[in-house]
Amino acid sequence: MAEPPRIHIPADDRPDLEEAVREGGGRTAPLERADGLVWLGGRPDELPELPDSVRWVQLPSAGVEQWLRAGAIDRDRAWTSATGAFGLPVAEHALALMLAADKAIHAFARERSWVDEGRHRVRSLEGATVAIIGAGGIGRALIGLLEPFGAEVIAVTRRGREIPGPARPARTLPADRVAEAWPEAHHVVIAAPATDGTRHLVGAPELESMREDAWLVNVARGSLVDTDALVAALRAGSIAGAALDVTDPEPLPDGHPLWDLPNVLITPHVATPPEAERRHFAGRVRENVRRLAAGEELEGLIDPEGGY
Amino acid sequence: MAEPPRIHIPADDRPDLEEAVREGGGRTAPLERADGLVWLGGRPDELPELPDSVRWVQLPSAGVEQWLRAGAIDRDRAWTSATGAFGLPVAEHALALMLAADKAIHAFARERSWVDEGRHRVRSLEGATVAIIGAGGIGRALIGLLEPFGAEVIAVTRRGREIPGPARPARTLPADRVAEAWPEAHHVVIAAPATDGTRHLVGAPELESMREDAWLVNVARGSLVDTDALVAALRAGSIAGAALDVTDPEPLPDGHPLWDLPNVLITPHVATPPEAERRHFAGRVRENVRRLAAGEELEGLIDPEGGY
Repeated sequence: MAEPPRIHIPADDRPDLEEAVREGGGRTAPLERADGLVWLGGRPDELPELPDSVRWVQLPSAGVEQWLRAGAIDRDRAWTSATGAFGLPVAEHALALMLAADKAIHAFARERSWVDEGRHRVRSLEGATVAIIGAGGIGRALIGLLEPFGAEVIAVTRRGREIPGPARPARTLPADRVAEAWPEAHHVVIAAPATDGTRHLVGAPELESMREDAWLVNVARGSLVDTDALVAALRAGSIAGAALDVTDPEPLPDGHPLWDLPNVLITPHVATPPEAERRHFAGRVRENVRRLAAGEELEGLIDPEGGY
Repeated sequence: MAEPPRIHIPADDRPDLEEAVREGGGRTAPLERADGLVWLGGRPDELPELPDSVRWVQLPSAGVEQWLRAGAIDRDRAWTSATGAFGLPVAEHALALMLAADKAIHAFARERSWVDEGRHRVRSLEGATVAIIGAGGIGRALIGLLEPFGAEVIAVTRRGREIPGPARPARTLPADRVAEAWPEAHHVVIAAPATDGTRHLVGAPELESMREDAWLVNVARGSLVDTDALVAALRAGSIAGAALDVTDPEPLPDGHPLWDLPNVLITPHVATPPEAERRHFAGRVRENVRRLAAGEELEGLIDPEGGY
């Protein structure tokens, strides 16, 4: 049997990750003798020089735009992101935003009086149409959460391939037919990676073709939505509202028009609660150490050409 | 074959109910020749004198306290409420409140600035414990909605009998063991009918025995919670917050302390959206007309002794 992979964890306050390494069949080691590195720092320029022995680097986040832009992802070793690992918590957040929109919770939370029933419109997810743009970890988890609601889900994926798993969307569309989803959805949920190809995926024409009672929900990256076009659409009433965990620019500066629109709900990029992040990241580390030991393809492998 | 039951609908703007009567195998008729009455008025004193031919009255709401108090429920005929009919929409609302609490949506909705991640605590429903007090239509629908979250559900029912249906709680407790649920639950969801026996079901001792990070969610009736004790518990920090669609008194008067507590979210008794109410009430009428025609026991039969 091969040696257990030696994994470096540059932190002494993460016993959960040390345990994940052991459970995956590896052992922890100093960087200079490591086969793999579990990197917890936020910025590419903080990364130390990697010894040749390191044949795998696990990055901590799901999105790795800044790592790709910085040219940090070399071809000398495998790099993995946490993509998909936080699918369930982020899907929870997306559903929380959708339900907050449907139940006007953002609006009632701002009241200091028992207002008339009709003051803020309340509606049901049952029988609604939900378009989920992107069916990676978040999208698939959200399809699962929506299953018992009796909502009709349209999943939009790159190639329109069928979604694996027990919960199935009513329809799957390839990205080049995404335009068919806009006029139907009561909720448009953005859950796709930020790439050159998805920048301003939602712009003026897309907003224009949405239903007037549609909410735009973004739990992916701010850059997928053209913020100025969104503000214009919300002011014109061409969509009903926007619930955003991510914005462009981010952080959203004080005084930005989105702060003042009554039909906007903003959460400041908090879709992965710290405890959930730790737990699911440890799960990703455990699985990738196991795969490294077994010589299997790693989960969340970064494709520098694809841009994610 | 027996004559189709003749049903009176005292409204000319409810073609959906006329259709429900037909689909259930009945036909509409004037009150003086009716076997059944679908009553849409709110108050018992609005009810006309009923001819002897009327052997069934369908009331429009799930809770019928005021009808019982007014002595309107006679023994000359069967009376049914809409109990259970709005289970799914109200369960949606309960879940919306729980997720709003977990994701601090009430708090972020009140911000006008991109606050630090730690400003309002965000957590996951995955792995949380949810106590559902009452497992009628709302409770059972909520158990179904929670199924894909990976939360642990404790259902409290009168006799602790097993819950029918595909989604099962981890545990079911009889009402006389409800005290076991308080110290465990991250969310305590009140979904039981208002009766003499459930008045102030949640009072000072119950709040005292809850977790400090627990949220109280009430989608049933305000009278089940001792409001003064709740305000005291929220001020003392002995629970984390309260999300209330119903209050006592209701409407909650301006200036009431609940309006000023930062960890309180109030929606003004809107858990059943109008469209969902119409759709599900029509479904109840259709089913009860069918049962009346078939001589089966009606759904939502009111038990004047039980008080619901």
